[in-house]
Amino acid sequence: MSEKRTEIGQLGEFGLIDRISKTAVIHNTSTIKGIGDDAAVIDTGEKYLLLTTDQLIEGIHFDLSYMPIKHLGYKSVAANVSDIAAMNAIPRQITVNIGISNRFSVEAIDALYEGVQAACLNYKVDLVGGDTTASPSGLFISVTVLGEVDKEKVAYRSGASDKDIICVTGDLGGAYMGLQILEREKQVFLTNPEMQPKLEGFDYIVQRQLKPEARMDIIYEFRDTGLSPTSMIDISDGLASDLMHVCRQSGIGARIFEDKLPIDQLTYNTAIEFKIDPATCALNGGEDYELLFTINQKDLKKVEMHPDIHLIGYMDKKEKEPVMVTKQDQMIVLKAQGWDHFPDK
Amino acid sequence: MSEKRTEIGQLGEFGLIDRISKTAVIHNTSTIKGIGDDAAVIDTGEKYLLLTTDQLIEGIHFDLSYMPIKHLGYKSVAANVSDIAAMNAIPRQITVNIGISNRFSVEAIDALYEGVQAACLNYKVDLVGGDTTASPSGLFISVTVLGEVDKEKVAYRSGASDKDIICVTGDLGGAYMGLQILEREKQVFLTNPEMQPKLEGFDYIVQRQLKPEARMDIIYEFRDTGLSPTSMIDISDGLASDLMHVCRQSGIGARIFEDKLPIDQLTYNTAIEFKIDPATCALNGGEDYELLFTINQKDLKKVEMHPDIHLIGYMDKKEKEPVMVTKQDQMIVLKAQGWDHFPDK
Repeated sequence: MSEKRTEIGQLGEFGLIDRISKTAVIHNTSTIKGIGDDAAVIDTGEKYLLLTTDQLIEGIHFDLSYMPIKHLGYKSVAANVSDIAAMNAIPRQITVNIGISNRFSVEAIDALYEGVQAACLNYKVDLVGGDTTASPSGLFISVTVLGEVDKEKVAYRSGASDKDIICVTGDLGGAYMGLQILEREKQVFLTNPEMQPKLEGFDYIVQRQLKPEARMDIIYEFRDTGLSPTSMIDISDGLASDLMHVCRQSGIGARIFEDKLPIDQLTYNTAIEFKIDPATCALNGGEDYELLFTINQKDLKKVEMHPDIHLIGYMDKKEKEPVMVTKQDQMIVLKAQGWDHFPDK
Repeated sequence: MSEKRTEIGQLGEFGLIDRISKTAVIHNTSTIKGIGDDAAVIDTGEKYLLLTTDQLIEGIHFDLSYMPIKHLGYKSVAANVSDIAAMNAIPRQITVNIGISNRFSVEAIDALYEGVQAACLNYKVDLVGGDTTASPSGLFISVTVLGEVDKEKVAYRSGASDKDIICVTGDLGGAYMGLQILEREKQVFLTNPEMQPKLEGFDYIVQRQLKPEARMDIIYEFRDTGLSPTSMIDISDGLASDLMHVCRQSGIGARIFEDKLPIDQLTYNTAIEFKIDPATCALNGGEDYELLFTINQKDLKKVEMHPDIHLIGYMDKKEKEPVMVTKQDQMIVLKAQGWDHFPDK
């Protein structure tokens, strides 16, 4: 064929999404926000409905040699609920599609759905549908979540203003370092099947990778304290990448401080052991499913004493991009590394 | 491993869905109907919201050696819109998830989304999100559609009553015979690549397979004439299987008549050429995406002169299952053959 062929790796995932979203035409007045945020926003009259979807593919997103299939079911729901949390909304219903090769037994699928149901119970969402089909190879899961929110409470990526304070929940980089531990032990096992994986002492970060939680607790606290973030996103691709989304969509830069990045001690120590800069884990690790949000300075009192919310910087109209002040007082421009599963970029 | 292992093929797709749906717990009062109909039903206040999702997997549901990728995009939307139509509802928004191996170029994905957008334009739905990811092998598409309907208009599978008239739109079995033609020509081509596929004269049935339409025209007509079906389902698995769903969920049998089955002349002739009983195509062919619905006898006048709605029988409390009166005046119990992609059943 002499036709032009462009590799998907040349565009990358974000480039491909940009390309697809440019073709989208809106026909319905109920569509408030389409592609480009953590979830689509639909006007149902009294409230806004949120719609988000995500896939997990065996061999790309997970490895069943160390990922218990029940945890996989849990994580597939939690990751999607996290996108609803990022809109400051409450998740209500989910659908789960699975493709399964004949390698999987009914018992394995039961275990997968045990995890799905455990997450449904935890987040109070209802499994209302889905599609089960054979797959030529491996397992893949596609989850869709519906949520709802009072119209005045919805939080977009685009709402941050100059001087807004940048907050993150929990700690960052743990899921990434947990993955490094799991991968190392897998290699040890492959080299010598007599060896048992050594995961003791790494429980916290391994758990961060295998069974992450969506921060719905924070969203319910916002309801209690009356706090409305000016913008919000969940940290699934890494702080750098996700802060860049907020900056681009809000049309403003940001300044964060390395010494304010919340990094758990175990994450820190493990990163050092692996000769990885702990800040890099926090910035580019991904899969932490914490919340990154901005607040107006007048709301500072509502978060400053919170044990699990960390103030890492502020939005800054003097910058065009997100920058970080390092511990050595140098200023670096953050690069959105994110996750890129497409090769050859 | 000494643990019990049950093959998925022993349960089949419907068995697996039953098993999954038994584990589902409803936490939210807004969930009106979960697993078990063409779409889930959610109360958003003024109206009902419908939610449905479906997957198309390369090597299982489609073959790109004869399926143009643009048509595949169109079909993936049409098949889901058809599930919204089956609830007597109007589709509004969709999300499209794709997994793509490195065999696919950006140009191929552009063509896929051209088809998606063509369907969006035709059905007036908005593409509002989705997930794009790499796949270890082949292409898969997972589409979710949201629709809406006035609460009193929603049509379930479970609403049919004794003596209700059973109607089907369009004609049946065409998509299946189109597939047979495409498969035959593929085999000819594989045997001798010099041979060009002979599709002339088979346009209608090939089109039925490659570019099916959801019958939204019928749903809009229901609005115009004020007709409310007592039950409805779309014919995606075959008339026998889909009528059985209506019977089981309505708790009543049905009696249909072979000589009333709407079969297009080309479908009929091609079936004879392939030594297949044309009635079997109509009953078990699948993928026609026509509507099967029941109406109260008082509404007969609203459909009897309709050129594209066919009355094929009636609900019958004297039967426990759907039965068909053959042209030879014999009575046979319909078996739900449907599509079963899981082997070893």
